[in-house]
Amino acid sequence: MTAYQTLETRFRDYGTLGDISAMMYWDRATMMPDGAAPGRNDQAALITRLRRQILLSSETADLLDQAEQETDGLTVFQLANLHQMRREFLNESILPDDLVEKSERDASVGELAWRENRANNDFAAQQPHLETVLENVRQVASIRAEAFGTSPYDALIDLYEPGLTQAEIDPVFDRLASELPGLASRIIDAQAAAGYPGDIPGPFSVKAQKRIGEEFMSALGFSFDRGRLDESVHPFTGGIPDDVRLTTRYTDGRFDEAMMGILHETGHALYEQNLPAAWRGQPVGQSGGMALHESQSLLVEMQLCRGQAFVEWSGPKLRAALGGNADDPLWSVDAQHRRLLKVSRGLIRVDADEVTYPLHVILRYRLEKALVSGDLAVGDLPGAWNDGMAELVGVQPETDTDGCLQDIHWMAGAIGYFPTYSLGALAAAQFYQAALVQIPALDDQVRQGQFRSLQVWLAENIHSRGRSESTQQILTQVTGAALGADAFMAHLKQRYLGDVN
Amino acid sequence: MTAYQTLETRFRDYGTLGDISAMMYWDRATMMPDGAAPGRNDQAALITRLRRQILLSSETADLLDQAEQETDGLTVFQLANLHQMRREFLNESILPDDLVEKSERDASVGELAWRENRANNDFAAQQPHLETVLENVRQVASIRAEAFGTSPYDALIDLYEPGLTQAEIDPVFDRLASELPGLASRIIDAQAAAGYPGDIPGPFSVKAQKRIGEEFMSALGFSFDRGRLDESVHPFTGGIPDDVRLTTRYTDGRFDEAMMGILHETGHALYEQNLPAAWRGQPVGQSGGMALHESQSLLVEMQLCRGQAFVEWSGPKLRAALGGNADDPLWSVDAQHRRLLKVSRGLIRVDADEVTYPLHVILRYRLEKALVSGDLAVGDLPGAWNDGMAELVGVQPETDTDGCLQDIHWMAGAIGYFPTYSLGALAAAQFYQAALVQIPALDDQVRQGQFRSLQVWLAENIHSRGRSESTQQILTQVTGAALGADAFMAHLKQRYLGDVN
Repeated sequence: MTAYQTLETRFRDYGTLGDISAMMYWDRATMMPDGAAPGRNDQAALITRLRRQILLSSETADLLDQAEQETDGLTVFQLANLHQMRREFLNESILPDDLVEKSERDASVGELAWRENRANNDFAAQQPHLETVLENVRQVASIRAEAFGTSPYDALIDLYEPGLTQAEIDPVFDRLASELPGLASRIIDAQAAAGYPGDIPGPFSVKAQKRIGEEFMSALGFSFDRGRLDESVHPFTGGIPDDVRLTTRYTDGRFDEAMMGILHETGHALYEQNLPAAWRGQPVGQSGGMALHESQSLLVEMQLCRGQAFVEWSGPKLRAALGGNADDPLWSVDAQHRRLLKVSRGLIRVDADEVTYPLHVILRYRLEKALVSGDLAVGDLPGAWNDGMAELVGVQPETDTDGCLQDIHWMAGAIGYFPTYSLGALAAAQFYQAALVQIPALDDQVRQGQFRSLQVWLAENIHSRGRSESTQQILTQVTGAALGADAFMAHLKQRYLGDVN
Repeated sequence: MTAYQTLETRFRDYGTLGDISAMMYWDRATMMPDGAAPGRNDQAALITRLRRQILLSSETADLLDQAEQETDGLTVFQLANLHQMRREFLNESILPDDLVEKSERDASVGELAWRENRANNDFAAQQPHLETVLENVRQVASIRAEAFGTSPYDALIDLYEPGLTQAEIDPVFDRLASELPGLASRIIDAQAAAGYPGDIPGPFSVKAQKRIGEEFMSALGFSFDRGRLDESVHPFTGGIPDDVRLTTRYTDGRFDEAMMGILHETGHALYEQNLPAAWRGQPVGQSGGMALHESQSLLVEMQLCRGQAFVEWSGPKLRAALGGNADDPLWSVDAQHRRLLKVSRGLIRVDADEVTYPLHVILRYRLEKALVSGDLAVGDLPGAWNDGMAELVGVQPETDTDGCLQDIHWMAGAIGYFPTYSLGALAAAQFYQAALVQIPALDDQVRQGQFRSLQVWLAENIHSRGRSESTQQILTQVTGAALGADAFMAHLKQRYLGDVN
């Protein structure tokens, strides 16, 4: 066996242990009773330890060195796999064990404290926790920056979207920051003039919501032979490519949130289910960066499912499934569509529409860069947050609960993560624009509930590449352009203002 | 660290990996989509390999030798733990790898073939598979027998109920074989004379069945903070002590099967939930042999829940939960109770009542002993089966599907397992008889739905002992007698013929 082949064997075990972790994480979020938490923590810690033993052994290090000297005859995918192995090895090996453990411990404490302090609107109580967590993150950033020859913040972005840099993001986000507030105003004014169709009074059977949700998932190409739909407090897509576990959250008072949650996660799930089967268990067989992953969920949710063509197909089905009257104007396709496209200036990111959402992200992006560089002290965060909200979104929170305490990310040490949400939205617009060009009948197909061409197009152009290429490479090859705001802005103007240039 | 302490550390990882396996097994039976099976097989195989690496390493062998030389100062539980470690080590180490692998592979093939051949009533097609599986089992038995100085069949029993022997079982089963057929006749005649109350026409809401099942589980002491109730094709109790996962199977045409399934599994579950918390993850902290485990499920299902006192409490609740009319004689406590105690001569073991069940088991016990010793050739099994059924149960199957092909056990290589079912029934009768003596108010408490004393009694006397003592030791200490048929026979005569001596 060559060094590379031996590495594949070792990484297969490493990957299988990761698969086990993923299933246990899903179980924890959906099934596990509370009293099982301590035991589950032990199980998770053991898997992590065993994975690190495989990855960080001296044999793995030697094999990597050797395999990198013997690349003749390796295929493109094998080379990419070797590259990903090295990346995984570096990511795990350059940080000292005590920093890794301290980071995890502090993040866990900080997250727990945050749940209470957010509820109590007590930033002062959270501040020392956030300072500790931030200090750990800065140490991680500094070690990674030195090892990889990047800036500290770029070294953090790289954890979530490998290779992407602040230099690429800044101009794109600056453009959005300059154009979106004005665009949002125009849209809000236009929607006010047109009037809101009103909400549909519930209750809506949860069983019926689930059934029609599953029907839409199947139509979109989700294979229930290799996945499930369940419930959890925070919807997510978990599991592994051949066993994708989606979750959503139902209330009987409204259905749109659960339904859009299902469609969003279905976008993530299609990506996972269509990863290259031949590379299961190897690093290169996994999904790419988080911006690319989010582009797949937003392509389905925002580009496809909130589009006119989709609602023409789904609207009557939804109405029938939930027992609505065909003559009820609240259930008309037009009313359903307008409800899905409502734009407003809100305080809460997760409730934001697709027009204002990037402004919430840009605020966080700017603030976290300043926190990492030291330009912003944690104590000054609430003020900077409120000023930024006023400037970007045009509203200001009255409490930190609705302000800088609203998100879990920083509290748990996830810095460099926020930009991927909106970069995903931009990529989704680029991909969908390309799909509409390359599949000329797409809109007609969607209107008839035919999603096969789109599914194949996504699988061939994006999903089946696994981690063999970067998000930027895939974007450029598929859409002819690197990540940018053109397609996204054009999409918004067309959808919300009927502006087709 | 002493050698013993180091062993505890190693066995903690070994145990935690076993816990992970248990959760994945539950997921497979209840949640996993079919397409995930190949990946799940890889995950299970990796866990098995990692466990064997820990257990069979030369370090473990050396540590065991050393710890066994340094037992001064070890507590009783630590000594028992060391004993169980050695037992686990021997069980896994004395068989050659290729025999273990061949056995697993052949059993898996044999089981798959059996599903088809049973459906097709094709014993001839199954015969070569069973011969192969039996040959593997005989090799295992012979290796174990030589290592442990026992007979080959005793070496197989030991896999399921450690330490128990044919010499202990034979006289007990011989007595049952001689007395039960006549007793069954008397009961069947008496029930025929009294008349059958008739079945309650359904349908019964599955949701309501589940809700009242959970209510009964809670009343019996099941902690939903450390467990769940779900559905699977074959009901079982899985998971781990702090996360016990029960399953049952519902139909809306009848409720008694699902309900008795829940109560049976609750007996298993209480045992698991009340294992000694201080010994979680160590071999001695696990449940004992399968006869002891079955005694806990049968104590709850057969001794407690089919008893007059329990039905007086549960009957009206069940009726109310399932929408029955209080005036309907079909729903009277008497009718409900008589329905639960119906005795008949049937062909199928899993459908048998508690009176005839042991006869089904004794048939299998006698046949499997003869198969292992070579006194019975596989080709002669159908004839021997049918003769045995006529002699013991008094009915003969018309097909092998309803005869020697009905059970999965032998087909998958489980020989030595069957006796534990009825030994469990005997032990359950002994334990419950002792509980009635030691808790004089028990029947009155049960009539009022108070199960706390019984639960504490079971936990203190049985569950909290883990694997520190054998089934025979526990039985003798708690009931004053070794495993025997006295209590069981007295129980049957009293319950079914009103014979109180």
